[in-house]
Amino acid sequence: MIDAQIVKEALKKNKVRTEVFKDIEYLRFTDDYKDIPRGTAIFKDFVVWGYPHIGRIFQLTTGLPEQFNAPVWVEEKVDGYNTRIFSYKGEIYTLTRGGYICPFTTDRVREFISEKFFEENPHLVLCAEVAGPENPYVEEFPPYIQEDIAFFVFDIMKKGEQGFLPYREKLRIIDKYGLPHVEMFGRFELTQIEEIKRLLKKLNQEKREGVVFKEDAERDKRVKYITSYANINDIKVTSLNMLGLPADYYTNRLLRLALFIEEEQVEKNESLYKEIGEAFLEGIFKACQMVRSEGKVYRTFRCRFNKKENALLFLEQMKHASAHIQIAERSLEKKGRYYLLEFDKVFLNMTGLLGHLLKGGSVID
Amino acid sequence: MIDAQIVKEALKKNKVRTEVFKDIEYLRFTDDYKDIPRGTAIFKDFVVWGYPHIGRIFQLTTGLPEQFNAPVWVEEKVDGYNTRIFSYKGEIYTLTRGGYICPFTTDRVREFISEKFFEENPHLVLCAEVAGPENPYVEEFPPYIQEDIAFFVFDIMKKGEQGFLPYREKLRIIDKYGLPHVEMFGRFELTQIEEIKRLLKKLNQEKREGVVFKEDAERDKRVKYITSYANINDIKVTSLNMLGLPADYYTNRLLRLALFIEEEQVEKNESLYKEIGEAFLEGIFKACQMVRSEGKVYRTFRCRFNKKENALLFLEQMKHASAHIQIAERSLEKKGRYYLLEFDKVFLNMTGLLGHLLKGGSVID
Repeated sequence: MIDAQIVKEALKKNKVRTEVFKDIEYLRFTDDYKDIPRGTAIFKDFVVWGYPHIGRIFQLTTGLPEQFNAPVWVEEKVDGYNTRIFSYKGEIYTLTRGGYICPFTTDRVREFISEKFFEENPHLVLCAEVAGPENPYVEEFPPYIQEDIAFFVFDIMKKGEQGFLPYREKLRIIDKYGLPHVEMFGRFELTQIEEIKRLLKKLNQEKREGVVFKEDAERDKRVKYITSYANINDIKVTSLNMLGLPADYYTNRLLRLALFIEEEQVEKNESLYKEIGEAFLEGIFKACQMVRSEGKVYRTFRCRFNKKENALLFLEQMKHASAHIQIAERSLEKKGRYYLLEFDKVFLNMTGLLGHLLKGGSVID
Repeated sequence: MIDAQIVKEALKKNKVRTEVFKDIEYLRFTDDYKDIPRGTAIFKDFVVWGYPHIGRIFQLTTGLPEQFNAPVWVEEKVDGYNTRIFSYKGEIYTLTRGGYICPFTTDRVREFISEKFFEENPHLVLCAEVAGPENPYVEEFPPYIQEDIAFFVFDIMKKGEQGFLPYREKLRIIDKYGLPHVEMFGRFELTQIEEIKRLLKKLNQEKREGVVFKEDAERDKRVKYITSYANINDIKVTSLNMLGLPADYYTNRLLRLALFIEEEQVEKNESLYKEIGEAFLEGIFKACQMVRSEGKVYRTFRCRFNKKENALLFLEQMKHASAHIQIAERSLEKKGRYYLLEFDKVFLNMTGLLGHLLKGGSVID
């Protein structure tokens, strides 16, 4: 558990907030505080620790020997959103990275995760990526998911404890309960850098996001590495809302791309440069076009719910999530076995500034 | 003059600092405070007001009619640094935009600006751009300056007063004293947008930065517009030090480029996209190469002084100017009639992070 004194301090400093989901009240760490990561959630009887930050390396040849002292397990990093799944009084709930109980993920989780797992392991927490074209949070998704969403377990924690179950134990449990999981590429010696590079080249060609390395040792150190495909795609997908993201989102990705190319000695060919310029500008053009034709810049999301109640709860929660994004419901209708929710995220910064500039407004910068 | 009460308040709030240049002590506004712009300098007998911020439009067709009610004078915006030139007890001094007396500009100003002007007009302040390949502040310079620096007067102020002399009065004075000045393209009706666009297309082809529009009316409103050449060139020239600039430096320029193309309906051709990608990445590659070969990322500047004393004073001042840039003197030697100073600006953010990453370090972002 977490020392009550630290929680009191954190409350005073506004690092902890009380949240309510249906009849559950819990505390949520809105920021890292001392050794407690953002997203840590405190329930009446237990704590679900926040998912820790994972360091990123920009080059493999130097990065792997620098970061690790033992062989590493290599797993796919799936492009979706992080969730922690746990049971409470016989129900299954899911937390977002930030520590909110998510009405969408919670609504859908039983379709993907065996209930038997939680019946037999009420003390465990599954860490998973949720990804797919019909998720309500991120625009990107892996190419192999055709519709809706999918769950990919990648770690297992114990309630009330930081850190994860050992890798082989995780494999055993995933296997035993048939849990959906991220693709696992096996265990690599640190001398096998060429094999790892080949793997990443393949993932890049397949338009996948990257990998997480997990050291096969007591300290269970982790480091991630992202493909150049994913770095360019991040720019491409988000440039519609360029002013809504921290500006260093882009300089970070440019740096990653440059260091990837620098390591690989990829021919510095025109096609990659072109892709980068295009990724930035096409989104802004699209945004201008939206302002001219509809007066706002937005992106439409769709997602499927089992219960209408959860869709409404989800919308309510989203409406309070960001001061820079306005949520506009398009429709909520029963289609087949699901309630299909369609809503727009209206990007207010982009809408405001482009509207001003296209009308001939000036800015001081 | 400025109300003593406001200066006291500003001092308390750390918006004003005492500076010394040789035997002159003065106060400098380090930030905008109430209606007093950053860079305003208070001397014993008079005040030199800071040069005001000028709004920028991103599109001409809508921007000009939106911003102005009367015809506009159009002048070249020269790519250099802003200086305010004034006389004090028979000497000529120059202030940077931030309000420092600049030992370099002050050392050189008499070669470019007629002393007779200040003998006859000790109450006036010349606002000028200093530009050229051998200036110590900005890497870019107009293509028509082959060596050293040049001065380009664009406004005239009175000591102690905000605002500028009327445009025709400025023309008369520039003519009378043969002052070097920015190119003036004349007076345009607001209906002459096509002519103005043609002018900007020409400036773009000539690799010039842009124009400032000055309304021919009592309120003397000003607005600037930058060519797409200059926007790409800004990215190209600064990407070596990408982490040393505020990240929105880049998103701003991408937005300007996109709105330029959107207005001009320039064929969204591959060559422009390629230029943008190249502008970003080539600088980072160069920075990586510098870290690998020399252990640091830097740019070498050269400039010419009449007096050795001023070069030393300048170096001293630069050493305290930024926490993110280290100044390393390369050489200071008499060459012909000048003392030639060569120094490096070492970009510490870029040096630190790239050094870490190329050695295989990880970052959490």
